[in-house]
Amino acid sequence: MRYELYYWPGIPGRGEFVRLALEDADADYIDIAYDTENGLDRVNRGLDFDHNSAAPFAPPYLRAGDIEVSHVANILQFLGPRLRLAPTDEAPQLWWHGLQLTLTDFVAEIHDTHHPLGPGLYYEDQKREATRRSAVFLEQRLPKFLNYFEQVLAHNPTGDEWLVGDACTTADLSLFHVVRGLRYAFPAAMTQHKHAMARIAALTERVAARPGIARYLDSARRIAFNEDGIFRHYPELDVAR
Amino acid sequence: MRYELYYWPGIPGRGEFVRLALEDADADYIDIAYDTENGLDRVNRGLDFDHNSAAPFAPPYLRAGDIEVSHVANILQFLGPRLRLAPTDEAPQLWWHGLQLTLTDFVAEIHDTHHPLGPGLYYEDQKREATRRSAVFLEQRLPKFLNYFEQVLAHNPTGDEWLVGDACTTADLSLFHVVRGLRYAFPAAMTQHKHAMARIAALTERVAARPGIARYLDSARRIAFNEDGIFRHYPELDVAR
Repeated sequence: MRYELYYWPGIPGRGEFVRLALEDADADYIDIAYDTENGLDRVNRGLDFDHNSAAPFAPPYLRAGDIEVSHVANILQFLGPRLRLAPTDEAPQLWWHGLQLTLTDFVAEIHDTHHPLGPGLYYEDQKREATRRSAVFLEQRLPKFLNYFEQVLAHNPTGDEWLVGDACTTADLSLFHVVRGLRYAFPAAMTQHKHAMARIAALTERVAARPGIARYLDSARRIAFNEDGIFRHYPELDVAR
Repeated sequence: MRYELYYWPGIPGRGEFVRLALEDADADYIDIAYDTENGLDRVNRGLDFDHNSAAPFAPPYLRAGDIEVSHVANILQFLGPRLRLAPTDEAPQLWWHGLQLTLTDFVAEIHDTHHPLGPGLYYEDQKREATRRSAVFLEQRLPKFLNYFEQVLAHNPTGDEWLVGDACTTADLSLFHVVRGLRYAFPAAMTQHKHAMARIAALTERVAARPGIARYLDSARRIAFNEDGIFRHYPELDVAR
């Protein structure tokens, strides 16, 4: 099965959560925007109801034969069992998908630090609001989310290596990317939280050392964080308390 | 199977999307905050890692025997097939869950019109930012989301009565609630969009007329929209263009 990932070029963005799963599993996939001619047009065409009776609201979306799946959490729920990056029983699967959706919310709040007035305006047009929102985020929300995932690891009955059960899932790969992104965007604030997230930090290193991930991080396919993506480093927003 | 819904009392909130599915199906459920002694304590206790090895980040969460599920979209994905409010095949199920996740994003953006700086501050402390965010939301995002769901209905190969296939699913119930909420929060703006959402409006009436929903809307269990919830009516934010 060759998977097709449809996502914007030039940023890691939300597509990166899907890429990490495919790369970890060494799956056969193409990244439409980069690997095909007129790739960007193809990404856009998939969003057009003139060409599709069921078009996603936004990228990323994934095609696998006749199946199309949109939204990161939905795609990872679909891919997880196929790539052996998911628990196998119903109760842990529901827990796993719930964690992925908490990560979705976390990512949305991280994005909103630089876009508190929404995606419709440039950062430059909402800088003052972004300064206020970031301060509240770094003071209240960032520690709340980090503490949550630290606790999930601490209370995992099978050990604190992975979020769900005793094996790596897509949720671990996603948490790894969120932590990497936060360290890029908010280096000062993240340094302050270092001691409160020892388990998360260890998980992050564990993920980075996985063969598929290590190979991917060293490759040209890994797009660097930049100021067009979700995780942006604006020094004026990285307020240490 | 008796379902237990854990959610905050006093607001429809995100719990309402779950209630609508349970009520439509006339399912056996209790709403812990209202129907049990010390209900609010029980909701809070479920979030505490001292009492649970796998605690949700936030309500709503649902218990069904030994199973616990958190996040609205995850809960509805779990309940849908059990309540006959879901498609049965894999491809339409993935489409259905994707639509539910688009509704999740829509609801988050609606919430952020009055909380652009995040959930950590009161509305009164972010009124100026809320005015700017609401204007951008009403001009750009609201028509984009409404047009999207209108197109989903228009292009459904089995007809424009329901979002997925030819039968009501949890996604239709959720869209109904979002439209009701938007009409409460932004009556002027919604009146302007009336003609661009004829199919959505018809779906909304179709849902309201379903026996389980009609009975529920007439009952004391239906909590009115208010200014502590997601959909808040602040006249200063309801700017007609």
